[in-house]
Amino acid sequence: MKVPKGFLFSTAQGSFKYQDRDDLALIYAPEGAVPAGVFTQNVFQAAPVLVAKKHISQCNLINAILINAGQANACTGEKGIQDCEETLRLLSKTLEISPEFILPASTGVIGEFFDLKKWEKAILELRENLGKVDVGKVARAIMTTDKYPKLVSKCLTLDNKEVHLLGLAKGAGMIAPNMATMLGFILCDAEVDRSWWQSCLVEAVETSFNRICVDGDTSTNDTVLALSSGKVKGSFCEDDLYRLKKAVKEICFELARLIVQDGEGASKIIKLTIKKAKTRQDARNIATTIATSPLVKTAFFGEDPNWGRIVAALGRSNASFDPQKIRLFFGDIEVFGCGVAKLEDIDVWLQGYMQKKELDLVIDLGAGEEEYFILFSDLTFDYVKLNGSYRS
Amino acid sequence: MKVPKGFLFSTAQGSFKYQDRDDLALIYAPEGAVPAGVFTQNVFQAAPVLVAKKHISQCNLINAILINAGQANACTGEKGIQDCEETLRLLSKTLEISPEFILPASTGVIGEFFDLKKWEKAILELRENLGKVDVGKVARAIMTTDKYPKLVSKCLTLDNKEVHLLGLAKGAGMIAPNMATMLGFILCDAEVDRSWWQSCLVEAVETSFNRICVDGDTSTNDTVLALSSGKVKGSFCEDDLYRLKKAVKEICFELARLIVQDGEGASKIIKLTIKKAKTRQDARNIATTIATSPLVKTAFFGEDPNWGRIVAALGRSNASFDPQKIRLFFGDIEVFGCGVAKLEDIDVWLQGYMQKKELDLVIDLGAGEEEYFILFSDLTFDYVKLNGSYRS
Repeated sequence: MKVPKGFLFSTAQGSFKYQDRDDLALIYAPEGAVPAGVFTQNVFQAAPVLVAKKHISQCNLINAILINAGQANACTGEKGIQDCEETLRLLSKTLEISPEFILPASTGVIGEFFDLKKWEKAILELRENLGKVDVGKVARAIMTTDKYPKLVSKCLTLDNKEVHLLGLAKGAGMIAPNMATMLGFILCDAEVDRSWWQSCLVEAVETSFNRICVDGDTSTNDTVLALSSGKVKGSFCEDDLYRLKKAVKEICFELARLIVQDGEGASKIIKLTIKKAKTRQDARNIATTIATSPLVKTAFFGEDPNWGRIVAALGRSNASFDPQKIRLFFGDIEVFGCGVAKLEDIDVWLQGYMQKKELDLVIDLGAGEEEYFILFSDLTFDYVKLNGSYRS
Repeated sequence: MKVPKGFLFSTAQGSFKYQDRDDLALIYAPEGAVPAGVFTQNVFQAAPVLVAKKHISQCNLINAILINAGQANACTGEKGIQDCEETLRLLSKTLEISPEFILPASTGVIGEFFDLKKWEKAILELRENLGKVDVGKVARAIMTTDKYPKLVSKCLTLDNKEVHLLGLAKGAGMIAPNMATMLGFILCDAEVDRSWWQSCLVEAVETSFNRICVDGDTSTNDTVLALSSGKVKGSFCEDDLYRLKKAVKEICFELARLIVQDGEGASKIIKLTIKKAKTRQDARNIATTIATSPLVKTAFFGEDPNWGRIVAALGRSNASFDPQKIRLFFGDIEVFGCGVAKLEDIDVWLQGYMQKKELDLVIDLGAGEEEYFILFSDLTFDYVKLNGSYRS
């Protein structure tokens, strides 16, 4: 896997929560990189989110992202902010950069305070390992309940130069016993304009990380950061920029898909597309209502083509449509339309289809021109097991 | 259990879905009763809902409620309406009353059509059994995935006369493999004014059936009907009416509580109270967001005092509050306030409390004067098992 130029990586064992693996990671751009960031909309924002937002708004270039797994540093008040800043100060000293040029990202149990002694030790180890580990180790160090690391790369030729993109993410629902936490990092080596880079990330997040649903719960820590080192300089034309944006979108989408695939306990990925909605808001409401319905999610787990549950969720979504015009498809097969069932032997027709790991669900509202999709996982025994178990 | 005067009951075996039990029930008021009704808000409304709404709007007195379990007669289009009307016609012939004076209520699998031959036979049996069965048999006949029948009665003295109230309900989440379906019936023998009776039911539903959450899914069939036979005549004073309304509310609340207790797979009932909200809408949004969060629900199943998940759900509820002013209590114990954890050893403090079957959760928003409560169940293995299994 080719890595964008201008970045070094490191990991260390902080033992914040996990005892037998690296749980601290560093993405380092010695000569700085153009940053972009998208953060959780939750009212309760974790200390690292508040600090990262501040730094990203103040600095044109960023040198490092410091990520820990196991502790979210959320709901920790003023002390949480101070602790976060202290970890950046420790890193800034050892790297000889300003703390403002570092973005923090944390994931894990909320409400707990950092043990700064552990951080001191781990940051020394981070310094020692700098440049000696590959990005795969970073992807593994940021994992919490993830079953596997999530890493995607892309290479494209712009203005006759090779540009590399790399994305890594963590997320699987939530960390036991705490909350949904997804972190995503996109690295690139093209020379980009800062505001274009930010809009590029915002657009990519909108059609990827904003379109996935494991359990409908958002967290205090959700963060997606993008850094572009500018090592590949060029006079990129409009078409180049279009292709670069497309590549960022594809990387984010693939990472998002991997998160749903790895969703806690998930056995299926369902892509739900809402077509011909009157408004985009309607389409989104319907998609979210269906994707978070426990009845719909358990039916997919049971491989039961239970369209009644989907129609019922649709009916309580507060969207505007004519029930008589609704058409519902499993794959290419229409199961419901004009207010009634379209198939008599639905179980026979759909048995094979329901056994697939990735399914397509399409709802045509016949009400307008808007379209929206969402990827969601099913609700399984393992979900309950993972999230019903005691903290340990 | 004393039954309000003026009502007769019957049940029969229709074999609509269940083969070894009664699944058709009749509540019969030979001399008529004043009706009131509250129905599902779902856009997809089942045939019996549409027909019952029509009849209730056209008739001042109602003679009968005809209820079947196993088939919802929902998403069945015009044929579903005709079938529903045909069942009423069959009953009206045998009882020698007008079909308009009968209210239908169905619960069960959606999308399937009635087999009218089965209905013909079952309605004859219903006629034969009329007056020979007690109301307990009716409560059992309307069950679907319910583990037990739900029946509550009350007696009060108004204007020196004994007034009897009786309520029965079915609901446990949804019928496998279909949707949440709750039906409730309140019977009374006091002489009441029709519009007062309707407002009394609306108020009672608002603080009972509208305050419960098993999985957040509403159905095409939800129906609560109240009939008062007027057999106990009197000049009820304002205080009498106040007490009668209070009794209807208590009956509905107790039935609602029984539904949550019997919630599919439920092992706990949690009463969540939102205090000092700026607006009622805020309080309701917060209560619903928390009560439907899979993370919160699985934590209660795991007896884990996982306040981080509750705070995270609160933070995505779109309600207006100052995060610093939030106080969160498990029973009397404050676990979160001023933005930070209030207890260091929360597991020690709350271990005993979390093992209770009924828990109290209180959130003080410190933002205003509005208050709202909701009763919800936890999310368990058995929920997934019940709802993930194939139709059979």
